[in-house]
Amino acid sequence: MVLQSVAAAWEESDHMHVWALVLIVTLLLLCIVLGHLLEESRFFNEATIAILLGLVSGALFIASGGSQTTSLLHFDTEIFFIYLLPPIIFNAGFSVKKKQFFRNFFPIILYGVVGVFVSTAVITAAAKITFPRFGIRKLTIADYLALGTIFSATDSVCVLQILNQDETPLLYSLVFGEGVVNDATTVVLFRAFQTFNVAEFSAGVYLNILLNFVYLLLASTALGVGVGLLSAYTIKRLYLGKHSTDREIAVMILMAYLSYIMAEMAQLSSILTVFFCGIVMSHYTWHNVTESSRITTRHAFATMSFIAETFIFLYVGLDGVEMTKWKQTHSTEALGMFSVLLIATLVGRAAFVFPISAIANRTRGSNNRITIRHQIIIWWSGLMRGAVSIALAYSQFSQSGDTQNPEHATVIATTMAVVLFSTLAFGSVSKPIIEENGLAAPLLSGGSYSGGSMDFDLALPISSLTSGPSVTALLAAPSGTAHRLWRAFDNKFMRPSFGGFGFSPIEREEGTETSHRVRRSDSTRLVPYQAPDPPTPSKAADPPILE
Amino acid sequence: MVLQSVAAAWEESDHMHVWALVLIVTLLLLCIVLGHLLEESRFFNEATIAILLGLVSGALFIASGGSQTTSLLHFDTEIFFIYLLPPIIFNAGFSVKKKQFFRNFFPIILYGVVGVFVSTAVITAAAKITFPRFGIRKLTIADYLALGTIFSATDSVCVLQILNQDETPLLYSLVFGEGVVNDATTVVLFRAFQTFNVAEFSAGVYLNILLNFVYLLLASTALGVGVGLLSAYTIKRLYLGKHSTDREIAVMILMAYLSYIMAEMAQLSSILTVFFCGIVMSHYTWHNVTESSRITTRHAFATMSFIAETFIFLYVGLDGVEMTKWKQTHSTEALGMFSVLLIATLVGRAAFVFPISAIANRTRGSNNRITIRHQIIIWWSGLMRGAVSIALAYSQFSQSGDTQNPEHATVIATTMAVVLFSTLAFGSVSKPIIEENGLAAPLLSGGSYSGGSMDFDLALPISSLTSGPSVTALLAAPSGTAHRLWRAFDNKFMRPSFGGFGFSPIEREEGTETSHRVRRSDSTRLVPYQAPDPPTPSKAADPPILE
Repeated sequence: MVLQSVAAAWEESDHMHVWALVLIVTLLLLCIVLGHLLEESRFFNEATIAILLGLVSGALFIASGGSQTTSLLHFDTEIFFIYLLPPIIFNAGFSVKKKQFFRNFFPIILYGVVGVFVSTAVITAAAKITFPRFGIRKLTIADYLALGTIFSATDSVCVLQILNQDETPLLYSLVFGEGVVNDATTVVLFRAFQTFNVAEFSAGVYLNILLNFVYLLLASTALGVGVGLLSAYTIKRLYLGKHSTDREIAVMILMAYLSYIMAEMAQLSSILTVFFCGIVMSHYTWHNVTESSRITTRHAFATMSFIAETFIFLYVGLDGVEMTKWKQTHSTEALGMFSVLLIATLVGRAAFVFPISAIANRTRGSNNRITIRHQIIIWWSGLMRGAVSIALAYSQFSQSGDTQNPEHATVIATTMAVVLFSTLAFGSVSKPIIEENGLAAPLLSGGSYSGGSMDFDLALPISSLTSGPSVTALLAAPSGTAHRLWRAFDNKFMRPSFGGFGFSPIEREEGTETSHRVRRSDSTRLVPYQAPDPPTPSKAADPPILE
Repeated sequence: MVLQSVAAAWEESDHMHVWALVLIVTLLLLCIVLGHLLEESRFFNEATIAILLGLVSGALFIASGGSQTTSLLHFDTEIFFIYLLPPIIFNAGFSVKKKQFFRNFFPIILYGVVGVFVSTAVITAAAKITFPRFGIRKLTIADYLALGTIFSATDSVCVLQILNQDETPLLYSLVFGEGVVNDATTVVLFRAFQTFNVAEFSAGVYLNILLNFVYLLLASTALGVGVGLLSAYTIKRLYLGKHSTDREIAVMILMAYLSYIMAEMAQLSSILTVFFCGIVMSHYTWHNVTESSRITTRHAFATMSFIAETFIFLYVGLDGVEMTKWKQTHSTEALGMFSVLLIATLVGRAAFVFPISAIANRTRGSNNRITIRHQIIIWWSGLMRGAVSIALAYSQFSQSGDTQNPEHATVIATTMAVVLFSTLAFGSVSKPIIEENGLAAPLLSGGSYSGGSMDFDLALPISSLTSGPSVTALLAAPSGTAHRLWRAFDNKFMRPSFGGFGFSPIEREEGTETSHRVRRSDSTRLVPYQAPDPPTPSKAADPPILE
């Protein structure tokens, strides 16, 4: 509107900014349309399409003589962590099948904590031993440890693109759950390596890292749960019987975001915080709002997450062709480092997935095993490295995006190469591998999950109506008692204050199976034909339409 | 997550940034809660609450020794125009009662175009004559003309807070419609005064301004309509019978925003563009998507607009206590200038509202007059000056937020004072005035509108079922023929390509009154009690729940 008049006074970069926005929004739209058209394809998913589109348009931009490349193409870690990541992780928590997640808590924690340590050790060792042969001599031990952490950070966003919560619920909850915990662990380790004098390797340093880790885990979770409960309480208390749709939705969005940035401010793991905030909000807050707000939040959160995801992959693609980091890189050296890191990542992940699965299986019933096929998929689908690795690499090896040191530039370029290769190559064959292993829902070996619909009952009314077999399966599981205790506690102490399923007077009327069936057939009638689930995670988040 | 680790490497300002985000999100939440609690109050609305909260917390921040005041409190014109304004204006177009708007097109254009010229002339003259007496000697004629424009820019956002589309549809469409056109006119004039050598006052300059204006009006509208139609076509063509909720919603959001930033890039009036894009999207695109996407978009757009509005007022409040501009200001001078500008604004607006209303009434039926009471409200509710005025003032009188020239600093401070005073004082007495004039819906004199529900029929299925009287009233109106012609054209040429009401096969089944009634009672049963409309505009946008 007025900007153009203002632009005259502003520097040119501000107008460039609008230009870049137009480009990015157009590319996002292209990604969505292409994603739709290529939905049937086995080798493409939204992530690979976005990265490829980013690479191509970035290359075109440079070819057309764009000299302001850096400002447009450069990956901005702040935009990533402050604006793009929160909606994705929040929506993951908001739409995750909570029962599945908590039932697999033990293996998830093992993969996510012990796994990072194992993987970091393998990658650090591999890099430390081989890199000097490629002429890298100035990296410190802290740099190598940081490298190990950087390549142990799985890409939770990419995982969401490949695994489908409804088709492979066990795998989804294991791999995605690992991703969230992995992130927290990665942060602690990365910070520890930056803060402590790791050359010492004293017991004190280790104890410090351990205590820090436990504190981070507990404090981050508590903050997320706290903010989530506050939102439930606020909406229940203030808006009881006097709903205002916009305010409800606004309070949910703002409090979700508040949990994330408060964790940032308190130097906690904001991913863990916002993930648990999402879980609590879907368990309590979501049930305290009007029907329209429920539908709106489900879809709006999923859409925000979807846009942010696509944006991130586009961004990685655009940054991939940004030239300064490639110019300073010697290609033979880089190729060697690239191979070492890639192989180390593969080996480092195998080194913990298979042993940990074996340990975890000892606590699981015979019908509940993580089979060898599952283990292969878990190993494979956690191999992709993504935006988090890039952001960490920039943080360790550049000063505010500027890489003076040629060795550091080489490391960043190599990181980018691993990210691009792993996402494009590993990512595009993951779907075929999962299908060929017969791991899509109908063929899933081992009755290891209680059925997709079952998991909804913490979040959605439908579940309480599922019939015998899956309930039995659930109760047979080791976590059955814990779950019963939690339900009792929830009903007696939590729900009176914070609402939750059954809070809304309207819903109570409909607690019987009959009325549910009526509603279900209703919604089937009213909602146009839905395409088979696309590989996007957000799709899985769609609740049964509650009219 | 990782930011804290990164923060060590970054400058302190980046961590400040997170800190500021936490503060602003918390304040937004406070505004929403207070807005809810004070909903019954006649003197408070969300705008005044947000401004007061901004002022108080800004003052507290400074009192607590915040030395980084500028970065936190300073009003950033880019954030305002690129991120906050688009959702507000888009939602206004998306939820505006189209029939009412187009029926009042003639007076709206007169107020919005001729009105700005009259008001600018009055304010420029008043300032030019009196300011030298307050010791202001260095302002050029271009500065004075810019001042005239700045204080002729009505605050469309604030208007939305005070008038309710359902209670006072005629007033709402006149004042808000004027606001949108006013903005376009203000931009052209402001730019003309910056670009052309206005001291010449030659016929060529005038012709240039006129041509530029017509071009801007037509091109901006065409761009908005074009992007809106493209979105309808894309969704209808690609997703026909194969809906994916997230993609649909994402395409709507992204294309709406694209229209705005494309207009920015092409130096058009992006407000006009995004407004018409919103109208077209609600007429076509919205009907081409699934039920859940319809509910989601209605509420999500309204919520985004609601948050952006609250943010803007908070922002103005925070900027209000930012000290640098007050320090350079001599209080006696500023008080004189403040009074002159305030009186000139009052007089300048009166000078066109009453004559233009008289002219417009000549074309209107006797039951369709803009009564003198209406005219008073139109005059009064357009008196508030808001964020647009502040942004323009910064643009004219500062170099990237820095005011070296003390006269310029005084002008900016005075602008801020007028904005704060007009929003707080005029804004808080507007609701009482409207109520005491008996202009809320049930008492509205003159059958000048065909009823709230009638206007929905372009956007929502309900209307085709409203009964006799209002249809008669509509057809009796002068624009009846134009409207019939448009409907015929729309049915024959537009809807086959772009969809629109009745496009979805499911809706077609339900075109009978009976099934509609069933659905309506259904939704009444399912949706919890809705509070009486709050003064927020977004509330008015709520569609009848389509299950």
